[in-house]
Amino acid sequence: MFFHNRQAGGGENDFIESHFSDSDYCLNFSKEDVYIKKTSYTSKKGIRKKGASFMDRSRLWYLSKIGFLENVPADAADEFSAHIRHQNVSRGEIIQDPQSVRPELTFVKTGTVRLYTIDEEGRQFSYSLLGPGSTYGCLSTFSLGTENMYIEAVEPALICTIPEASYHQLARKYPVLTERILEILSERLRERGEMMEQLALRSVKDRLLHLLKMLFNHYGTYNENTVFQPIALPLTQQELAYMIGSSREAVSQTLHRLSEEGLVRFPKRRTIELHQSLLQEVPLPSYVQHLYTY
Amino acid sequence: MFFHNRQAGGGENDFIESHFSDSDYCLNFSKEDVYIKKTSYTSKKGIRKKGASFMDRSRLWYLSKIGFLENVPADAADEFSAHIRHQNVSRGEIIQDPQSVRPELTFVKTGTVRLYTIDEEGRQFSYSLLGPGSTYGCLSTFSLGTENMYIEAVEPALICTIPEASYHQLARKYPVLTERILEILSERLRERGEMMEQLALRSVKDRLLHLLKMLFNHYGTYNENTVFQPIALPLTQQELAYMIGSSREAVSQTLHRLSEEGLVRFPKRRTIELHQSLLQEVPLPSYVQHLYTY
Repeated sequence: MFFHNRQAGGGENDFIESHFSDSDYCLNFSKEDVYIKKTSYTSKKGIRKKGASFMDRSRLWYLSKIGFLENVPADAADEFSAHIRHQNVSRGEIIQDPQSVRPELTFVKTGTVRLYTIDEEGRQFSYSLLGPGSTYGCLSTFSLGTENMYIEAVEPALICTIPEASYHQLARKYPVLTERILEILSERLRERGEMMEQLALRSVKDRLLHLLKMLFNHYGTYNENTVFQPIALPLTQQELAYMIGSSREAVSQTLHRLSEEGLVRFPKRRTIELHQSLLQEVPLPSYVQHLYTY
Repeated sequence: MFFHNRQAGGGENDFIESHFSDSDYCLNFSKEDVYIKKTSYTSKKGIRKKGASFMDRSRLWYLSKIGFLENVPADAADEFSAHIRHQNVSRGEIIQDPQSVRPELTFVKTGTVRLYTIDEEGRQFSYSLLGPGSTYGCLSTFSLGTENMYIEAVEPALICTIPEASYHQLARKYPVLTERILEILSERLRERGEMMEQLALRSVKDRLLHLLKMLFNHYGTYNENTVFQPIALPLTQQELAYMIGSSREAVSQTLHRLSEEGLVRFPKRRTIELHQSLLQEVPLPSYVQHLYTY
């Protein structure tokens, strides 16, 4: 069976640590660019209606980072923004532990957070990474699956929250917000179902390859002229292990075997490269393509 | 790793087959009794208002079996019932395959259905059992996690469905229906999260014990005067294996070891007995207690 000792993380073999600066984000997160384009288009319409003085540039920038508000009408989005509170978190900071769950919704604007639990024997399991545009949290009427979880920033992150009362007040006025929650819940449920199947049926090698392909989608750079495609991974080997229900030792050995098979390369300490055949032959499972959608 | 060959099911070692008659249900499903009490109370209020001629006894019985309508006001529940279609399914019947998913919500009234997928190598994985009072299905606006799944009756079952258009028409009129969907989605997401953790971190023995305790909650009979508590299991060993991401052989060996340790007994072919210490020492994980809630 798989053992995960929390104390075992951060060892010598960890091949990558995050060192993104703020200015890197726009380069690294293509999904985020999409949100900026889409939601600022909507927001601009709203501003034109109400007059530019209603929202300064920085508030517009904040709003544009909330994936949850994508396709939400401008008036609702504007009102929403008046209720949110911003917070900068540093790499490694625990944003939530199971004892400190507050009734609020949180939106990841920049950076990445990791959702995980620790069982009574100290073994850790990561449920997912949530990148820019993601939403999490639990209210009295619904939960996005993050109750009883630790949430940690794996990179410096900018998050914002809306308290339960404000959310409900707005949701009563704008039913589209509830529709967005239904979409997110349905998508998360599907993702977790697919990940359950992976955990139940797939080998450590298969699960690791799937994870690397998923990470490539969000942290990779595709270059048509090279056979190996680099990923600037924000995760340690221990963190990869937590995400696939395996141990750091097994991940390390599997990466070594994949390297011998010519499927991956480690050109420098903080980068892993995937052979193009991995990205072409096997289409990514759909849960992967949506992992960062919300 | 775990291999599940669909063809391997139904072998000599399967210790249990379902043989419940209709009259058994009220004895075996305590949750269902709760629904009958609660929802028929509500429904009776509705009838008193509108006059008894609006609903015959059989329709009232049907309605009372829909856990989804628990705590839904009588007028909404009555209107809901006018849109549902009933269907009897026999043991082993495939109610849905991934190619035949229709946009509708389905409610299990009696019996039990199993949700599962089969991967490209023919390996099967069961996500959950849904008993009386459960809801499943997917519409254009949300999904209860059953898209792309096979759904099979593991016992004779009575199910009813409401088409997407009717559901939406009612949900616009009665927002409480959307609140129920949010509750169900949140609960399923939590269950799947806990099951992911089980699959990632726990041994076959631990997972099997958890599953047996869960099944005891729904199919068992507690007798204070005996040390071993019987479960009339509706599942084969192969089906148990599908639910914990293991093989029939591993389940068979593990049950044998548990029997040697004095934790389980097999007094007759279709019954398994759990030692009381299992039921007292380790509280059931919360996902188990809610597995049949909806």
